[in-house]
Amino acid sequence: METVSENRSFEGTQGVYSHRSEACSCDMTFGLFLPAEAADGPVPVLWFLSGLTCTHENAMTKAGAQAWAAEHGVALVFPDTSPRGDDVPDDEAYDLGKGAGFYVNATQDPWARHFHMWDYVSDELPGVLAEHFALDMDRQAITGHSMGGHGALTLAMSLPGRFRSVSAFAPICHPTQSDWGRKQLGAYLGDDETVWAPHDATLLMREAGFDGPVLVDTGTDDQFGDLLGTEHLAQAMAARRQEGQLRLQKGYDHSYFFISSFVEDHVAFHAAALYR
Amino acid sequence: METVSENRSFEGTQGVYSHRSEACSCDMTFGLFLPAEAADGPVPVLWFLSGLTCTHENAMTKAGAQAWAAEHGVALVFPDTSPRGDDVPDDEAYDLGKGAGFYVNATQDPWARHFHMWDYVSDELPGVLAEHFALDMDRQAITGHSMGGHGALTLAMSLPGRFRSVSAFAPICHPTQSDWGRKQLGAYLGDDETVWAPHDATLLMREAGFDGPVLVDTGTDDQFGDLLGTEHLAQAMAARRQEGQLRLQKGYDHSYFFISSFVEDHVAFHAAALYR
Repeated sequence: METVSENRSFEGTQGVYSHRSEACSCDMTFGLFLPAEAADGPVPVLWFLSGLTCTHENAMTKAGAQAWAAEHGVALVFPDTSPRGDDVPDDEAYDLGKGAGFYVNATQDPWARHFHMWDYVSDELPGVLAEHFALDMDRQAITGHSMGGHGALTLAMSLPGRFRSVSAFAPICHPTQSDWGRKQLGAYLGDDETVWAPHDATLLMREAGFDGPVLVDTGTDDQFGDLLGTEHLAQAMAARRQEGQLRLQKGYDHSYFFISSFVEDHVAFHAAALYR
Repeated sequence: METVSENRSFEGTQGVYSHRSEACSCDMTFGLFLPAEAADGPVPVLWFLSGLTCTHENAMTKAGAQAWAAEHGVALVFPDTSPRGDDVPDDEAYDLGKGAGFYVNATQDPWARHFHMWDYVSDELPGVLAEHFALDMDRQAITGHSMGGHGALTLAMSLPGRFRSVSAFAPICHPTQSDWGRKQLGAYLGDDETVWAPHDATLLMREAGFDGPVLVDTGTDDQFGDLLGTEHLAQAMAARRQEGQLRLQKGYDHSYFFISSFVEDHVAFHAAALYR
C-alpha cells in the first residue's frame, strides 16, 4: 500500500492511499479520514460509496462529512467507483465502465476481468483497512450517494451483521426497473434478470430488509428523480415495517450541495448506531 | 361557551370548555392548552385529533404535548371524536358511533343528524376558538393519532392554505381499502365509494398532496399495522415527491406510550412551520 497524500483535517488526518487490487486486477485508490481518536485506538468506520462519474475524491472534498465524523470520532472510507487504468475497458457513455462500477461483480465481457466492485468493497478493501489502520471493523456503517446509495443499501442488506446502520442520499432504489440499472446490470451481469435481483434495494427490502436503522434522504427537486424509483423503496420499507426514515427534502436536487446539507444528520445517525 | 375546568400547566393554562354545536346538534367539549405567551397576544395553534374511543381528554392527559407546546409558545386544541349525549345514536362496536366520528359529515341514518365532525372541526370549532381565545388563526398546524391521523391528513390536504404543516402518529392511511375505513365510510356516507375518496389520505396524496411539510411516525410493532396501510401513503408521498418524512419507529406500538415518545419531535416540527 502506498500513501498518496495525507492532510491534517479537523484534528485528524485525511489520507489518500493506493494499493494493488486482486479483485479488480488493477491499482485502486481510496480516501480515508481518521479522527483524532484513532491515535488512541481503533475507531468505528463509516463507508461512503459514491455515484456515477465519481472517483474516491468527490465525496472526500465536497460532502463535508469530515467535520461531523471528527465530532463523533468516526472514520470515513471513500472508495473509488470502478477499476482504473489504461488496460481497463471503458465506454463512451458516462454511466458504464469507468466511474460506473455499480457495485457488482461483472461476468460479461469486456467487463468480467476488472469490474468486481462488489468483491472489492465487501471483501478486499476491508482487509486492507483492517491491516493498515486503527479501525474497529466490528463497528461499521455505510452510506452513499445515487449509485453509491444503491451500493450502500444492497451491501447492507446482503451482508447481515456487517453494518449496524445504513443510509443513502438520493439512492437508485429499484435498478432492475430503471434506466439507471437495466443498462448496467445487463452489460455487467448479462440478460438473465434473476442474477440482477440481489442488486436491487427494493427487491432486497421486500424479501429481507435490514437488521438495523435505515435513513434515506432524497430531494423533491432531484433532476433524476424518475430514475431513482424512491416510491418503490418507500412502499417496501413501510410494508415490511422496516425500522427507518425516508425524508423528501423540499427543493433539493441531486448534487453535492444536497449531500452536504444533510450529511450532519447522516453522520449523527450512524454514530448513534456505532456507539450504541 | 362554558368553562368546565382550568388548570395551571407549564406556566400556561390547560382548559376544558363546552359549547352548543350546531354542526353536531349537541353539546360538545374540547380541551385547549394556552401557553404563557397567550397572555401577551395571539399564539399559533396546533390541533390534535384523537383516535377511536377517545374523548377530548385522552391526548390532553396522556400525550405529554403541553411541555413542548409551552417551550415553543404554541396552543394545543383537543377536540372530541364524535357527537355526544343521550339522544345521539351509537353502535355496540367500539369503532362506529360515539368515539368514532371519523371526521366526516354523515349522510346516512341514523348518523346523519349528529355525526358532522368534518364541519365541526373544520368550521364551527375554529370559529369558537377565534371568538373566545388569544389564538392566531392565520398560523395553524394539525396532527392526530390513528383515526385522528386520518383526520389530520385529510383535513390538511382538503383545505389548502389552512394548515402550515401536518403530522400524524400511526395514521389510518388508506381507509377506503381497510377495515378501519370501509365500515365507517359505508355506514356514514353510504355505498357510493366515490364520496369516500375525499376522506382517504393516500388518494388525496396521489391527487393533490400538501403544500407544506408532512411528518408521519408509525411503530414497527403497531398491533394494528395491517389496518393502517402505511405502505400506500409511503408510496404516494415518494411518487409525488411530497416534502416530508415517514419514520418507522422500531419496537413501538399503537399506544399513547408511542405518541408521548415522539411528541416532542412533532411539536418542534410544527413550531418550525408556524414561526417561519
